[in-house]
Amino acid sequence: MANPQQNSSGKDKLLFTPGPLTTSESVKQAMLRDLGSRDTAFIATIGKIRDGLLGLAGLSQEQGYECVLMQGSGTFGVESVIGSAISPGGKLLVVINGSYGERILKIAGVLGIECEALRCEENRKTDPAEVARCLQEDESITAVAIVHCETTTGIINPVEETGSVVRAAAKTYIVDAMSSFGAVELDVRAAEIDFLVSSANKCIEGVPGFSFAICRSEALDSCEGQARSLSLDLFAQWQGLESNGQFRFTPPTHTILAFEKALAELIEEGGVSGRAARYRGNYETLVEGMSELGFKEYLEREDQGHIITSFRYPSHPAFDFTEFYTRLSEKDLVIYPGKVSNADCFRIGNIGHIQKEDVQSLLGAIASVLKEMGIDNGS
Amino acid sequence: MANPQQNSSGKDKLLFTPGPLTTSESVKQAMLRDLGSRDTAFIATIGKIRDGLLGLAGLSQEQGYECVLMQGSGTFGVESVIGSAISPGGKLLVVINGSYGERILKIAGVLGIECEALRCEENRKTDPAEVARCLQEDESITAVAIVHCETTTGIINPVEETGSVVRAAAKTYIVDAMSSFGAVELDVRAAEIDFLVSSANKCIEGVPGFSFAICRSEALDSCEGQARSLSLDLFAQWQGLESNGQFRFTPPTHTILAFEKALAELIEEGGVSGRAARYRGNYETLVEGMSELGFKEYLEREDQGHIITSFRYPSHPAFDFTEFYTRLSEKDLVIYPGKVSNADCFRIGNIGHIQKEDVQSLLGAIASVLKEMGIDNGS
Repeated sequence: MANPQQNSSGKDKLLFTPGPLTTSESVKQAMLRDLGSRDTAFIATIGKIRDGLLGLAGLSQEQGYECVLMQGSGTFGVESVIGSAISPGGKLLVVINGSYGERILKIAGVLGIECEALRCEENRKTDPAEVARCLQEDESITAVAIVHCETTTGIINPVEETGSVVRAAAKTYIVDAMSSFGAVELDVRAAEIDFLVSSANKCIEGVPGFSFAICRSEALDSCEGQARSLSLDLFAQWQGLESNGQFRFTPPTHTILAFEKALAELIEEGGVSGRAARYRGNYETLVEGMSELGFKEYLEREDQGHIITSFRYPSHPAFDFTEFYTRLSEKDLVIYPGKVSNADCFRIGNIGHIQKEDVQSLLGAIASVLKEMGIDNGS
Repeated sequence: MANPQQNSSGKDKLLFTPGPLTTSESVKQAMLRDLGSRDTAFIATIGKIRDGLLGLAGLSQEQGYECVLMQGSGTFGVESVIGSAISPGGKLLVVINGSYGERILKIAGVLGIECEALRCEENRKTDPAEVARCLQEDESITAVAIVHCETTTGIINPVEETGSVVRAAAKTYIVDAMSSFGAVELDVRAAEIDFLVSSANKCIEGVPGFSFAICRSEALDSCEGQARSLSLDLFAQWQGLESNGQFRFTPPTHTILAFEKALAELIEEGGVSGRAARYRGNYETLVEGMSELGFKEYLEREDQGHIITSFRYPSHPAFDFTEFYTRLSEKDLVIYPGKVSNADCFRIGNIGHIQKEDVQSLLGAIASVLKEMGIDNGS
């Protein structure tokens, strides 16, 4: 049966995006089941995932950490943490160098939480010294939030160094590690993180439908009764999971089964370091090849992570992003629009069930498309 | 490979629950794909689903109705409506005869929305005249919420008659039709409903991961800027869907593909009336068989819907629900615990990809289990 969403071989397009990603066949096949959300088999799966996520961070309940799963997208998870962790009358400092930092600020604003923004250049890593200065100048700040890999550009912010500053000032420390967790080494304990948020459909290569928070137990305890929402109450969700192993409200059962498989495949690949190595290989292949085609990266190499890369539009007058995107999509390769506010860029993700050969295919297709568009090179 | 969650034939247990449900193989197979959340093919799917849901309710955008999809479970959808539709300073009357009514009250409480509860007997339909009395006595009430099929018992509340009362008083009318939409005939327009909420994993027989609201456009318009949450902002979500056809935040892509297939299968089955007929057949087979085994229903027949049925525990001293449940589960049949506050009950769902023969298998297994437990009959 012809399906316009699939190519002639019946395969889906490869996704070079920040997620939802291309996932393995076996991860998708794990969804070919219907489990009752309150049945023992499913409860065991939830427990395995919660322990597995802590393990991935090198943590355990015995060490004073907890993992809470939350329905919805990553933003739902971030809102759940912001809305639960900031005490009434508290004040949040948001360290911002891209849209996901801005989103945290927006969440806090809608929730009526007092906040301050520390805005940094989009093409520079955030500066821990600036955070220290803010904390010194405004003692009413009770918590600090920062994005680990700012997907807007692909920059990796210094969350460990920022963590030392936040801990020294005895504030609550929240890290949005949405697009980095599972594929960028991060010592959650050394970084003094109280709440780390990520999602099912990023580097662990599950499918979208829930997010999760890794929480320092003491910090989580202090969230009791603070949530601004019933659905997004992090503490109540944790209490539910602890009391009977279940979600309080219907969980995305199939997504969770896929995630169980995805976690197992991540471990098989060698955990965080194994996955990071593959993504780094994808990244290096990409930037080398794009550079040969003349494309310029938005960030300096030393600021860039291996998750997603922003490239500037070629200056050639024949370049039109929509046409470029569409022509690549017709070759079954999906890239991503840019999000930087001060430059015309597009993005290419290095994550998901994507191998070096896939990146090479993409590079070949980009070369062809440039030629088709009458553009001699990408600079 | 042996899998403890599956039976010897490799098939999953049949779910006689209120959801997540047993779904068709083809619905699950629709998830064997990875689509980009911002790609045109996926955007087309979202549009098809939004139109399809309106169509299922006999409505269209031209008639002044909108369909908004929201990530998360059904409760997330209800919270999204409550948190967006009640104006600042508004007051919500919640008509309650079970846990899902209580949950709406709890949501409003957490959100700091003033509310009043009209509590009715759990084993009686709610009374529109009582609603009228409340609205007369307290003119500060601005909105009324009620549950269509209260899954606690399986009772079907008179949402049409209540709608007339609410419209006469010119209040906003919110109906939680979680477990009824798609399989219980309901004229949304005649019932004067402003916001109806349901979820992917109920009578439409999709998998869990999102909910949806069918909204009267004028009522939806008035939600602008009122939401108490960024993630659960119904108006902003609608604006996002309208502006570019996309979710504002990562959608559960696989769940949505499954739902597209589920909707198509519902239409093939003859729409709401076709599906209602199969469920009613399941229900009739169930109550007849259970009655023959001596079981007593919790509700009077005239108050009972065909979605889920509550049965009282047998009075025999050897009856133990956990043992009963476990023995049935070992026979690959999953029933559901009770939730009624004033009687010991268990529940059996009639919904999902379940046929009359499946209900007959369940009845046979229940007869065997009673015998195994040394119980002569279910009364």
